[in-house]
Amino acid sequence: MTVPTSQPLDASKLEINLTSTPRDVPIPGSKTASGCTDHMIVADWTAEEGWATPQLLPYGPMEMMPSASVLHYSTSCFEGLKLYRGHDGNLRLFRPEANCARLLRSTQRISLPDFDPNQVHQLIRKLCEIDGPRWLSKDYPGKFLYIRPTVIGTDSSLGFHVPRSARLFIIICCWPTIQSTADSGMRLTVSQEGSVRAWPGGTGATKVGANYGPTLQPHGKATSAGFNQVLWVFGKDHQVTESGSSNFFVVWETTDGRVEIITCPLENDLILPGITRQSILALLRDRLNVETPALVDSVKPVTVVERAYTMGEIQAAERENRLLGAFAVGTAYFVTPVSYIDYHGEDIHVPVGRVPYVELLQEWLSDIKYGRVESEWTEVVEEVKN
Amino acid sequence: MTVPTSQPLDASKLEINLTSTPRDVPIPGSKTASGCTDHMIVADWTAEEGWATPQLLPYGPMEMMPSASVLHYSTSCFEGLKLYRGHDGNLRLFRPEANCARLLRSTQRISLPDFDPNQVHQLIRKLCEIDGPRWLSKDYPGKFLYIRPTVIGTDSSLGFHVPRSARLFIIICCWPTIQSTADSGMRLTVSQEGSVRAWPGGTGATKVGANYGPTLQPHGKATSAGFNQVLWVFGKDHQVTESGSSNFFVVWETTDGRVEIITCPLENDLILPGITRQSILALLRDRLNVETPALVDSVKPVTVVERAYTMGEIQAAERENRLLGAFAVGTAYFVTPVSYIDYHGEDIHVPVGRVPYVELLQEWLSDIKYGRVESEWTEVVEEVKN
Repeated sequence: MTVPTSQPLDASKLEINLTSTPRDVPIPGSKTASGCTDHMIVADWTAEEGWATPQLLPYGPMEMMPSASVLHYSTSCFEGLKLYRGHDGNLRLFRPEANCARLLRSTQRISLPDFDPNQVHQLIRKLCEIDGPRWLSKDYPGKFLYIRPTVIGTDSSLGFHVPRSARLFIIICCWPTIQSTADSGMRLTVSQEGSVRAWPGGTGATKVGANYGPTLQPHGKATSAGFNQVLWVFGKDHQVTESGSSNFFVVWETTDGRVEIITCPLENDLILPGITRQSILALLRDRLNVETPALVDSVKPVTVVERAYTMGEIQAAERENRLLGAFAVGTAYFVTPVSYIDYHGEDIHVPVGRVPYVELLQEWLSDIKYGRVESEWTEVVEEVKN
Repeated sequence: MTVPTSQPLDASKLEINLTSTPRDVPIPGSKTASGCTDHMIVADWTAEEGWATPQLLPYGPMEMMPSASVLHYSTSCFEGLKLYRGHDGNLRLFRPEANCARLLRSTQRISLPDFDPNQVHQLIRKLCEIDGPRWLSKDYPGKFLYIRPTVIGTDSSLGFHVPRSARLFIIICCWPTIQSTADSGMRLTVSQEGSVRAWPGGTGATKVGANYGPTLQPHGKATSAGFNQVLWVFGKDHQVTESGSSNFFVVWETTDGRVEIITCPLENDLILPGITRQSILALLRDRLNVETPALVDSVKPVTVVERAYTMGEIQAAERENRLLGAFAVGTAYFVTPVSYIDYHGEDIHVPVGRVPYVELLQEWLSDIKYGRVESEWTEVVEEVKN
């Protein structure tokens, strides 16, 4: 059969092959919640034929040649988003179109094939429609599953070149809820001189695999020493960039008495343009902005700032009792307060609960994701009866 | 069966399972020489049990969970070395212990499990002993096969952490000989501002997958525009680092009339400490050094320099007619002259053949690798009659 060249990715053609041996479902969010759901979606691409018909298949191992591009040259990128079981009983996705658009940018950065992000969006929905009802049942409002769309280079010719074959796959994983750090705050350690996560002209602004493996060594050292994450700084002046794989915000009082919430800007490829980051900036600007009438009466309005800032500024704020809080944000970590930063041997104690912004942001985002309030950012997923 | 914890990698235990369907062997170095040989070696590791018994198996696809660490977080590293069919009829490896030592350093950098490099060395030899005789027969002196030892993270728990399972595998590939650029010289294009291969504190000094995929985009652009490789520069002053995935040398006359052969130093994690690079530095210092009696009469002795140098210096040398040559070196590219550099739109014409150093180095290394001269750098591989 001849397929027209450059066949586009087409979610409407999805072929569905359901498992005949559905597995036991762990309690969502429980300690034993690990592994993936019953199904996955796979779509293969070749330079000659374009995208093959996407397949929904029983979850299981994939075959790969030992010479496959992804195993040698890190031709991989991915997304992370969640499927939420709402308090109203509905399944919801949060801004999935933003994840799909970023997946395309990451795919292009790592020289993997183009696709229409909307088709990936439809495939994600389809997998959620089929596995969501059983793996995240209506009995567990306020819980979630984790969705991982991934694109890899499968070209097996071993030479170093742009892959001529690739695979998109989407899997859904169970994830235990980690409440301890969310309550007491995370302990961070600032990255060392000889260890850098991202740099101008690198890949820090896309979600490619190559950003992750190289940070495991310092991450492993940090966790062994009792820290939750590495706080990544850049440059001789120790500009604050990301915390682990999350975006990072600091709340401080300025020397002229305003409350400022600050985060690293998107310039220079140093940080991932997080969807939670973007949502938090929008919520803060919309509801708590000092320059427009704030929508929240009980809380002091803030100035929201995206600019390069340094560890020295955080240290000065702490010394002058102006440090009000800090938090990491991301799909995996939601909005998690930080209680302590080890800055190359010097302690920085970060107040937790001194100001209510973290709790407010948690509440606002949670209300949106779990359907307590209507929002343009969420979409309800239809549920297919298996 | 209980295996003692942290079982070390043990090549002596290799279990051999030969293929019952050996494939046709392409003519070594021919245009159709692609794909891998009949067998591969695989050894699995887990945090609980250490290294399992290495297996020599028929070459073929491996099974991998879609959630495997390597597919998401680039937990991979590799080596490249060659098996040479000598003019004396013997099979030889060139400094394999150096590749195995570097594989361990790369493995550690990417948080994959330790091993005794000598065991990997023995496994490489074993695979060569079995596949070498048929895939690189005595009828093809002066030809080679390409060996690719690789370590990947196979942990399928998807969370971002140091992998608790991994796989070492060794494959051997056929490779067509590309003579055209070796004769006429390669055309390079200098990397753009927004595109940086490596950074101090990054992984540029180890052979991890994460160094490669992110460079495919500029590499693809360069080859589409008719260049052979990107010449990677670093910093505002455009320090010259690597050419493609090869180390890079420039030959110029200094303003005081000496001949200097210069290459980027190993500091700052900016370049891979190439084994060909190291061998060439040793040969130049041993045989052509201006400070010790040169062993070659007919050629002007040289000063060998490892220091940061810039595109501006190359440009000045060309302008003043002091640019004598340039070449890229590496296992894949051997010693290949460069004829042209596109420096952000400005032409730099590099003489090819004006000075005889490239030809001398090619001859010296070739004589060693193909057994025309005895050397501590090579070892003969015993051949097993299949």
